[in-house]
Amino acid sequence: MNEAFLHGRLLHGGDYNPDQWLKYPEVLEEDIRLMKMAHVNEVSLGIFAWAKLEPSDGVYDFDWLKNIIDRLYENGIYTILATPTGAVPMWMSEAHEEVRMMTEDGIRRLPGERHNFCPSSPYMREKMRAIDERLAETFGHHPGVIAWHISNEYGGHYGDCHCPHCQRAFREWLKKKYGTLDRLNDAWWSSFWSHTYTDWDQIHAPSRIGENTLHAQKLDWRRFVSDQMLDFCEDEIRSVRKFSDRPVTTNFMMFFKPHDYFKWAKALDVVSFDSYPAWHNEADDVRTAMETSMNFATMRSLKKQPFLLMESTPSATNWMKYNMLKRPGMHELSSLQAIADGADSVQYFQWRKGRGGSEKFHGAVVDHRNGANTRVFRDVTRVGERLESISSRVLGTVNQADVALVFDWENWWDVEDAQAVTNPVNYLKTVLSYYEALWKQGITTDIVNMDSDLADYKIVVAPMNYMYRGSYMEKVRAFVKRGGTYVTTYWSGEVNDTDLCFLGSHPLRDLLGIETEEIDAPTDLHRNEILYDGTKYETTGLCALVHAESAAVLATYQKDFYAGYPALTRNYYGDGRAYFIASENEQLFTDRFLAEVCAKSGVTSGFDAELPYGVTVSCRKPVEKGHGDDERTPLYFLQNFNYADTNIQISGAYNDIETGNTVSGEITLSPYQCLILE
Amino acid sequence: MNEAFLHGRLLHGGDYNPDQWLKYPEVLEEDIRLMKMAHVNEVSLGIFAWAKLEPSDGVYDFDWLKNIIDRLYENGIYTILATPTGAVPMWMSEAHEEVRMMTEDGIRRLPGERHNFCPSSPYMREKMRAIDERLAETFGHHPGVIAWHISNEYGGHYGDCHCPHCQRAFREWLKKKYGTLDRLNDAWWSSFWSHTYTDWDQIHAPSRIGENTLHAQKLDWRRFVSDQMLDFCEDEIRSVRKFSDRPVTTNFMMFFKPHDYFKWAKALDVVSFDSYPAWHNEADDVRTAMETSMNFATMRSLKKQPFLLMESTPSATNWMKYNMLKRPGMHELSSLQAIADGADSVQYFQWRKGRGGSEKFHGAVVDHRNGANTRVFRDVTRVGERLESISSRVLGTVNQADVALVFDWENWWDVEDAQAVTNPVNYLKTVLSYYEALWKQGITTDIVNMDSDLADYKIVVAPMNYMYRGSYMEKVRAFVKRGGTYVTTYWSGEVNDTDLCFLGSHPLRDLLGIETEEIDAPTDLHRNEILYDGTKYETTGLCALVHAESAAVLATYQKDFYAGYPALTRNYYGDGRAYFIASENEQLFTDRFLAEVCAKSGVTSGFDAELPYGVTVSCRKPVEKGHGDDERTPLYFLQNFNYADTNIQISGAYNDIETGNTVSGEITLSPYQCLILE
Amino acid sequence: MNEAFLHGRLLHGGDYNPDQWLKYPEVLEEDIRLMKMAHVNEVSLGIFAWAKLEPSDGVYDFDWLKNIIDRLYENGIYTILATPTGAVPMWMSEAHEEVRMMTEDGIRRLPGERHNFCPSSPYMREKMRAIDERLAETFGHHPGVIAWHISNEYGGHYGDCHCPHCQRAFREWLKKKYGTLDRLNDAWWSSFWSHTYTDWDQIHAPSRIGENTLHAQKLDWRRFVSDQMLDFCEDEIRSVRKFSDRPVTTNFMMFFKPHDYFKWAKALDVVSFDSYPAWHNEADDVRTAMETSMNFATMRSLKKQPFLLMESTPSATNWMKYNMLKRPGMHELSSLQAIADGADSVQYFQWRKGRGGSEKFHGAVVDHRNGANTRVFRDVTRVGERLESISSRVLGTVNQADVALVFDWENWWDVEDAQAVTNPVNYLKTVLSYYEALWKQGITTDIVNMDSDLADYKIVVAPMNYMYRGSYMEKVRAFVKRGGTYVTTYWSGEVNDTDLCFLGSHPLRDLLGIETEEIDAPTDLHRNEILYDGTKYETTGLCALVHAESAAVLATYQKDFYAGYPALTRNYYGDGRAYFIASENEQLFTDRFLAEVCAKSGVTSGFDAELPYGVTVSCRKPVEKGHGDDERTPLYFLQNFNYADTNIQISGAYNDIETGNTVSGEITLSPYQCLILE
Repeated sequence: MNEAFLHGRLLHGGDYNPDQWLKYPEVLEEDIRLMKMAHVNEVSLGIFAWAKLEPSDGVYDFDWLKNIIDRLYENGIYTILATPTGAVPMWMSEAHEEVRMMTEDGIRRLPGERHNFCPSSPYMREKMRAIDERLAETFGHHPGVIAWHISNEYGGHYGDCHCPHCQRAFREWLKKKYGTLDRLNDAWWSSFWSHTYTDWDQIHAPSRIGENTLHAQKLDWRRFVSDQMLDFCEDEIRSVRKFSDRPVTTNFMMFFKPHDYFKWAKALDVVSFDSYPAWHNEADDVRTAMETSMNFATMRSLKKQPFLLMESTPSATNWMKYNMLKRPGMHELSSLQAIADGADSVQYFQWRKGRGGSEKFHGAVVDHRNGANTRVFRDVTRVGERLESISSRVLGTVNQADVALVFDWENWWDVEDAQAVTNPVNYLKTVLSYYEALWKQGITTDIVNMDSDLADYKIVVAPMNYMYRGSYMEKVRAFVKRGGTYVTTYWSGEVNDTDLCFLGSHPLRDLLGIETEEIDAPTDLHRNEILYDGTKYETTGLCALVHAESAAVLATYQKDFYAGYPALTRNYYGDGRAYFIASENEQLFTDRFLAEVCAKSGVTSGFDAELPYGVTVSCRKPVEKGHGDDERTPLYFLQNFNYADTNIQISGAYNDIETGNTVSGEITLSPYQCLILE
Repeated sequence: MNEAFLHGRLLHGGDYNPDQWLKYPEVLEEDIRLMKMAHVNEVSLGIFAWAKLEPSDGVYDFDWLKNIIDRLYENGIYTILATPTGAVPMWMSEAHEEVRMMTEDGIRRLPGERHNFCPSSPYMREKMRAIDERLAETFGHHPGVIAWHISNEYGGHYGDCHCPHCQRAFREWLKKKYGTLDRLNDAWWSSFWSHTYTDWDQIHAPSRIGENTLHAQKLDWRRFVSDQMLDFCEDEIRSVRKFSDRPVTTNFMMFFKPHDYFKWAKALDVVSFDSYPAWHNEADDVRTAMETSMNFATMRSLKKQPFLLMESTPSATNWMKYNMLKRPGMHELSSLQAIADGADSVQYFQWRKGRGGSEKFHGAVVDHRNGANTRVFRDVTRVGERLESISSRVLGTVNQADVALVFDWENWWDVEDAQAVTNPVNYLKTVLSYYEALWKQGITTDIVNMDSDLADYKIVVAPMNYMYRGSYMEKVRAFVKRGGTYVTTYWSGEVNDTDLCFLGSHPLRDLLGIETEEIDAPTDLHRNEILYDGTKYETTGLCALVHAESAAVLATYQKDFYAGYPALTRNYYGDGRAYFIASENEQLFTDRFLAEVCAKSGVTSGFDAELPYGVTVSCRKPVEKGHGDDERTPLYFLQNFNYADTNIQISGAYNDIETGNTVSGEITLSPYQCLILE
Repeated sequence: MNEAFLHGRLLHGGDYNPDQWLKYPEVLEEDIRLMKMAHVNEVSLGIFAWAKLEPSDGVYDFDWLKNIIDRLYENGIYTILATPTGAVPMWMSEAHEEVRMMTEDGIRRLPGERHNFCPSSPYMREKMRAIDERLAETFGHHPGVIAWHISNEYGGHYGDCHCPHCQRAFREWLKKKYGTLDRLNDAWWSSFWSHTYTDWDQIHAPSRIGENTLHAQKLDWRRFVSDQMLDFCEDEIRSVRKFSDRPVTTNFMMFFKPHDYFKWAKALDVVSFDSYPAWHNEADDVRTAMETSMNFATMRSLKKQPFLLMESTPSATNWMKYNMLKRPGMHELSSLQAIADGADSVQYFQWRKGRGGSEKFHGAVVDHRNGANTRVFRDVTRVGERLESISSRVLGTVNQADVALVFDWENWWDVEDAQAVTNPVNYLKTVLSYYEALWKQGITTDIVNMDSDLADYKIVVAPMNYMYRGSYMEKVRAFVKRGGTYVTTYWSGEVNDTDLCFLGSHPLRDLLGIETEEIDAPTDLHRNEILYDGTKYETTGLCALVHAESAAVLATYQKDFYAGYPALTRNYYGDGRAYFIASENEQLFTDRFLAEVCAKSGVTSGFDAELPYGVTVSCRKPVEKGHGDDERTPLYFLQNFNYADTNIQISGAYNDIETGNTVSGEITLSPYQCLILE
């Protein structure tokens, strides 16, 4: 848990790059003054400072950094200190080309940009260890340094490296996994198209100028790419650990497909997250709020503990098609949404806009003009005040879920790469539609993968669960036998962990009580509909054709040659039930059906009100509920994502912990308002 | 003709890849059982089996293949045996980089995928000859082996190779064609942009990083690319011929632009074809059916004899945007459409879905699950039964045409590359619109190119005949003089065979009785219309501005500054007529006008009925009509491509050869029904 | 001024490539006959003739060229002679790879195409100097040669070269500019992302495989690319100058972003221009006419003297999506529009269509067929006649402007590269919308950049003036102080000349009387509107949020949280006024507002009529108005771009200089008519 290293405070602060302003000494002093005005208690330092920390090979200069950490600490501001590998200095990538990545065409990249090193380069590893150890030795016990920010947004810029070092490392990774080429050939089904490998050196990374459709190989390459960068990260952590016991984190990104964050989280003490939702880009903010919430739910589920909101913008980003300004109230709401959904901090990228470079117009707390006299600065200050006032009530609480939603990176990689019914499938969008149904009811939902323990949940939802791997099938069977409710869909159970199709029958045929036969991919001109309990819903994508065996048929297709075929089935299994949704359906169906499933399992939001459109509620509770050592009541964050006054009828009576007012009966939430109730 | 090697049977079978299942011996036995259930009498073997046949350099293992061929033959199933060059083994492309193609950027491809060898590589040629000869020696007289499947879908994956071997071969090809650089410079008009070549080594393949707009060079490069791969194919055929006299074929693809199939067909004993129409992707199936029919017509016209439908799917492909399941009846209909339009077989890719690899979800006869108990398996069985029942009536018959439609690969290459009125022009789509008009009337149409003999036809239709080459103009003049009807259009007669513009006047001015001046490319905002015999039709693309000389004006433009100019002319020439259609028009005009042209020439479908929308008829007749040695009556395949009951009024009386019923008067065709009548 | 070297005639002629027809001697004689028919008095020779002029290394053959120049001169046709670097011979780029450019991926281009040499190659420079000097020596005093056409459309094909020669030249360019790396690092803000350069050799060209978001570096690279090609051009000019004093020009292209034509123009005696508007591609021709007019205005403003219309097509181009034929009248109108807006010639690319190559279908005066008997040839002849008849009235006159519109290449490069509010911004389109408002009123407008002298104008309009560089701010302040009117907009004054943001406050805060705070980028779903003098106008893009200080608020936003904020302000400053337009608005607002600004400053077209939609007027006046040495009255070119009869009410009375008719009261302009009135 975070309370200890957070010194009892929700963090408020963010990335600070004073190394860009060393020639503007007045700026540094002004920053400290403004930070205090804005109730900032933390900054993240040194993220892109390698060129300043090691201006030439082996020559280190940490004095300027020490001065800044000291000055901040004297003013009550803590530092989360970065290792500087987020961008390598020019002298380094110029002199040692092995530092630079290689494209899939075999072209060595030129120096520049960021996140630009090869994770397999021995020279890079050596230079990283040298500077990380030296930083840890120097600052690892400084009272102002509360945690380590390992590198920055690993993998964020270029993607994978195809250099000879990486190709060799990939082969070693495969040798370790498969032992023999014979096993690899069988697992990859490489007899297809004469791909049988007879020497390890015949194996290359997938490439648009080489092999690009051997899915098992591509899947292993994706695993390797994630693992190899994680290996680099762990190498950094070991270097820091030699001299410092401060917690380590690295900042994750929104639904970042290349890295399996479930595996990554194990290496960290705290998960941290960079959140840049596209607020206001649609007609309303509801879908954006829901997607953001699922991001947060993922982050807090990875280690089942609160995370840090390491980056966000108080204003607009500079890289979307439309960078709309945050409307009044949105900055408070979106900051508190993070807290509501499991963050213990609100941090920004960045404190002050730079004068040049690619991110000079990215929204920051302090702008090029007008100092503290800006709408944004006032919004940030207000967030700082509210965080301070609720810190003691929030720290030590967590979001506790009865529902698990399966979102598995390996499944993601494989199902979207499958050349199959196409259409194409979008795994993330599919999972989001199920999260949306739960979010609209204010149901706390954990995000899990196929390695996760399912025992503590009442409901497990697993949409488009194309791959079954490891002990997942056994866990699902055990979960349902013990009384759990399992909801799954079309295009599940097709392949094993090396993308080999299951033969014979559907691998969860016993549990689901159905057999699958074909799957249809209707165009927009050929949509079907399903009839469920008297109401018709449109299908919006794939339609599986299945045969009910022991399962009951709850809905049927209405059109085309499979009219009358099952569209929704329920099978009793042990003490539980398993539902199979055969088609991709309009959201109305998913909303209704999941609400019914929750009701049947007694799963609720805990908050006593019907939630109108655009309003949701999140709940944080003390960790050790019922042990007597934390008698705090649950906190409900009631969030209005409508840019309009919104009425809500509240059945119970709640206390607003900030104002002390009682909240009950019909009330009106103002635009983008967030109430914190107990 | 095919009867001999087909052993008196329409083939039913397809690609079979047991080399992927050698570790699953139960599968092999189960396959034979299922094949017999499905009335399968043929399989295509060894297509991607090189890695299994030559597991390392010079080490051959044919035993497993012999066992399978023997087992199949014992069970009444014939083999069409492939040469395995469709995919080279990993050890080969890894050890000898010259096997791999080079991109136009000069980057050597990596090992992987398929159809992945350079046709000019001496090493590849040597390895190919070694294995092809050995296979022919081993299996060339096996009673179960009825034909050779040379390689697979030549040219299907990567396109052209830019390696030094290919560049040298291109220069040799040019030397042979032009003799001197002076003649090449004149033919290519290379004085433009200072391109005069003073040494053969200055000539390269066209490339996006080099020369890319010298159309004569690009045209010769396309000819070379087709010729060079054909040269490889002929090399394979020679290797097989050393030891075997079985017929040879290679499988062609749908409107495959890179290879001039008219030239290729000469090298083969039998043409075979892979057909993957996008059934159900549009609001109805009529356009898809018509395009498929033109593909079939092309295949049977190449050698003026029936072809083999070498590949098709009984279910859905796995590579379109929407892979819709075949609706009930469509598999029978689409299989019989092939027979109707000139195939002597219905074969599938593939018999059994693989467990892995990029095509594991491509529709096959046997699925991963449910064995023979699937809708697809039952559909396939029904096709097998029908083929068996009609074999003796169909074998030995052909489709006999009075109409020729000019579809010329060289014209295709050149006209779509021309930087001209753009718009852009789509040659294939243009030709299809004329085929459509004929198909809707059930008129049998041959597809010819500019080298073809035109003497036996009554009507020749030549849309967008941009290039005139060889003796084409003389043949056309002779054809019309003898009483033929010639229909041609705008954007014809612009360039000769090296893309040099004709100077002075239109090269068929005498025949057409017009002179051309300009050509307009109206945008969608500026469409014109034409008035023909009291009816107005919209133009949909280019509009040529021509002056009638001896020709009569049958239609005129109605708008803009060329209102009143000729839009359709007719010129009497010798005993025949030549029509010139000046503009791209809506399909209604083309349908009507070609119907009138056919009526005037006495060309009919031979089937006595008005064909409703979505219904067509194809006719196969004994080859030596009237010689007394084949007294069989013509067979009419009446095909309903509507997914609905469709009424048709039949004036004559026909016998259904499958049921023996008499068919006459108003009848109702069920959805996707195909009746075979005599 | 041009009169001298033009020999008192508006030129009529264009590119002529007889080097392609040397084997067709009858064509050359026929061309002279046709030229005289078409009133052609000039041709541009030798543009792509290097391969004919130097058929092999060091072997020159100028005889054929001399014969042609002589024959033309004997027939009264002048020659503008080209240096042949527009396309290097094959032998040269084959033998010396350094001649060829390198892509940003580091791949050396192959021989071919045109505009295909590296401007930094020492070998290319040497070969260029040798042939240019020899040409100048041979023809530099020939009485038929009136000017030099240096190369052709510099930079038109491939863009920038990334070869080692260019990279070195870039570093030298930077050393000269910054002196020390420390200054460069500060100017580029390279401390961001650890980009600090510690050695000049660490600097590379921007590249998609390297640095691509360091805007200051990219800006300097763009400056270098323009400067380096200009350096090549100046090297050519020096070579020619050694032996010839004829004026030099090079042909510029339409809004060609890579080259800063303001800098380029200084090197030339005369500006010339290639004009290829997409006539008829839209529902009407008004926007195309306006854009073309702004192109012409730019050309005549570069040196504040008339330019040559070096290329145009009398028919259709061959490279647009729709190459529509010019409707009757359009060729005359578009030719006279050039004269009206400052050209002293109408020249074509090209005289005769080639038989082959990529431009064989590009509209030319003489087609492949029909000789002089074409619509196009007749149109060209009519233009020749009109030019002859007005030559003496037009030569020596210029367009004189009271309004300057700022269109600055460096601003263009930088603002469209900025990663900011995106949306994305389109600088050219923005400037065009202001030109459009002025053009619709027939106001003569000069195009200036930030280096230009503003003293002589009454109004300066500077939209989206993102960068302020050099003494621009001082000039603007002085201009307004002296009574000028300055109109500027949102997204101005953000960065200095190395893309560093201005700190503290808006750099023209004093002049504008406002302070800027934020800028919003609403999506199409969130458009705002502004209220101006009782009328509402929609915003169509960015919306700046500003605070009025000394400025008066003339319009306000109407929606969202900034409803009531200023949308248009006016500040009195010295004797003048400065307007700030805060948002991108619909064209109606811009039209109205600029009309009011002009009226307030007493700026008019000088032509006494209300101009209907699609009609504009341009005015040319004698240069030294009022000195008594040129008493000619102003000429008004009244142009109807409607493809329809258009009524106009003329208040004054004018004389048609071609017919002698008096034009007054309500008259009807026929479609595409151009009247020349005094």
